[in-house]
Amino acid sequence: MGMSAKKAPRAHEPLPLTGRNVAVIGLGSMGGGMAASLLRAGANVRGYDPSSEALARFSQLGGTAACDARHAVEGAEIVLSVVVNAEQTEQLLFGEYGCFKHMLAGALFISCATMSPANARSLGERLQTSGRLYLDAPMSGGAVRAADGSLSMLASGSAAAFDAAAPILAALAGTVHRLGDTAGQAAAFKMVNQLLAGVHIAAAAEAMAFAAREGLDLAAVYRVITQSAGNSWMFENRMQHVLDGDYAPRSATSIFVKDLGIVLEMGRQSDFPLPLATTALQLFLMTAASGMDRDDDASVARLYAQLAGLQLPINRADAAA
Amino acid sequence: MGMSAKKAPRAHEPLPLTGRNVAVIGLGSMGGGMAASLLRAGANVRGYDPSSEALARFSQLGGTAACDARHAVEGAEIVLSVVVNAEQTEQLLFGEYGCFKHMLAGALFISCATMSPANARSLGERLQTSGRLYLDAPMSGGAVRAADGSLSMLASGSAAAFDAAAPILAALAGTVHRLGDTAGQAAAFKMVNQLLAGVHIAAAAEAMAFAAREGLDLAAVYRVITQSAGNSWMFENRMQHVLDGDYAPRSATSIFVKDLGIVLEMGRQSDFPLPLATTALQLFLMTAASGMDRDDDASVARLYAQLAGLQLPINRADAAA
Repeated sequence: MGMSAKKAPRAHEPLPLTGRNVAVIGLGSMGGGMAASLLRAGANVRGYDPSSEALARFSQLGGTAACDARHAVEGAEIVLSVVVNAEQTEQLLFGEYGCFKHMLAGALFISCATMSPANARSLGERLQTSGRLYLDAPMSGGAVRAADGSLSMLASGSAAAFDAAAPILAALAGTVHRLGDTAGQAAAFKMVNQLLAGVHIAAAAEAMAFAAREGLDLAAVYRVITQSAGNSWMFENRMQHVLDGDYAPRSATSIFVKDLGIVLEMGRQSDFPLPLATTALQLFLMTAASGMDRDDDASVARLYAQLAGLQLPINRADAAA
Repeated sequence: MGMSAKKAPRAHEPLPLTGRNVAVIGLGSMGGGMAASLLRAGANVRGYDPSSEALARFSQLGGTAACDARHAVEGAEIVLSVVVNAEQTEQLLFGEYGCFKHMLAGALFISCATMSPANARSLGERLQTSGRLYLDAPMSGGAVRAADGSLSMLASGSAAAFDAAAPILAALAGTVHRLGDTAGQAAAFKMVNQLLAGVHIAAAAEAMAFAAREGLDLAAVYRVITQSAGNSWMFENRMQHVLDGDYAPRSATSIFVKDLGIVLEMGRQSDFPLPLATTALQLFLMTAASGMDRDDDASVARLYAQLAGLQLPINRADAAA
């Protein structure tokens, strides 16, 4: 569960992406960090984000801000798409100002959004029909690992797409799981991960609030659970936010409303029952409905606390203010 | 999440429990392993279990088999109780042939059963009123760690109880979490752990069977998830059983029927909603009702597979037979 920054190349080595033209669409906490990793590896990076703040941060790192996505992708050999979902990816590639036709022939599109396998498959097939390559490459690891180039990436696509993507993936990821030769396969693995991640966050919140109800010291609960069989990656990561009383969004409640929605739609399509994912989605929806949709997803713990009239730790910065 | 065996003492050191008289009640996979650790540390161990097989295994290790619990505890300074639940502990101490009056005055009773805080508190208070010491000491870690003396133990009780227990805990546990000065506090931490552990096993089963429905290679799913944010201690441990098609009980389905039942009863008593624990309990009950109550708790995956007509990996030994 640790994180490790990439070693800097030695002074006499050329940077691995020197002279390569890469476009990054979506410069939020993940895309911005990935763009920084590509710049550090020597790439010429053109980027676009509808937020002018995100664009300004990107410019300060040495990137070239484009006025729209179409200008960002023109002339790029590789387009890295770090938008939120299938709809935005669809709009980017095939919408009114669709970008696919502005990409070079043979250029590679790397799609990082979490989406259903069916959507990933459809996008990949249509882009390949136009003579470009598509890599289905959802990611895991959060903003810190995006920025230091140590993401874990799930990927599926043709051998040609993997060959073209290799230097980019090396700059972005500590681990690349190669999961098949068609778009949609990596997406399916990602959705299995999101099912577990979502249930584990909600279960961690349920357990911490239950412990508070039982009058237990929450710091001791955190210490005991993280050394016991009840531990999960999400408990360890998100319950630190609860101990700190800090609900600034590292990943917002709305993300799991979206992702568990995709999981449950997949289950309906294939007649597969998912009772735990269903319950977890309802908890994220209750949290969102209570006004915490843009707060950190650990806010499910605050939902339980509100319901039961419990006092959780209060943000020290808030308390001091 | 690793396991580490205790170092053997050097030849010239006396064994730490030489000359100490300890009784162990319950010699199953956990109690039998703990008895072995105590024997290795030099204790004189008298033991009892209703199973003659368990008693015979214990005798072979050098323990003294007693014909009933009363004879096991007579003259013991310390009684280690590794029975299944509060009812058995109650029966052992205060039932028709109740043992409390056969323990030496000032002797220590260490209770390892998972039970509600209210039951642990009541047992502790009654035993202490009789002039004996009580340590509430539920454990975590499974049969392998019981046998090699590297359990993780949660413990609460008086300073006198901790003092008396110290050499025993050193022989049994890699980690002892000291969680308060009254019986019931350790039990509460254990129930928080069991809530998470139960939900995580059921979620792991839901996710693995869902992955099978999506046509994914389950060994690849295991590899990806155990390196991703969807991981849990229970996913890593129990889904190996699913990959092996091996449902021989390391911990049986019926244990989580019991433990999540205690968690939900605690929630009812304190007006606290537990939707995920409720859903997980229903899944363990469905698994038990389908005839898998004595099989490994990873059998929840087989429940999903049966519902959806899926093929999970088949036990190699079974396949060869």
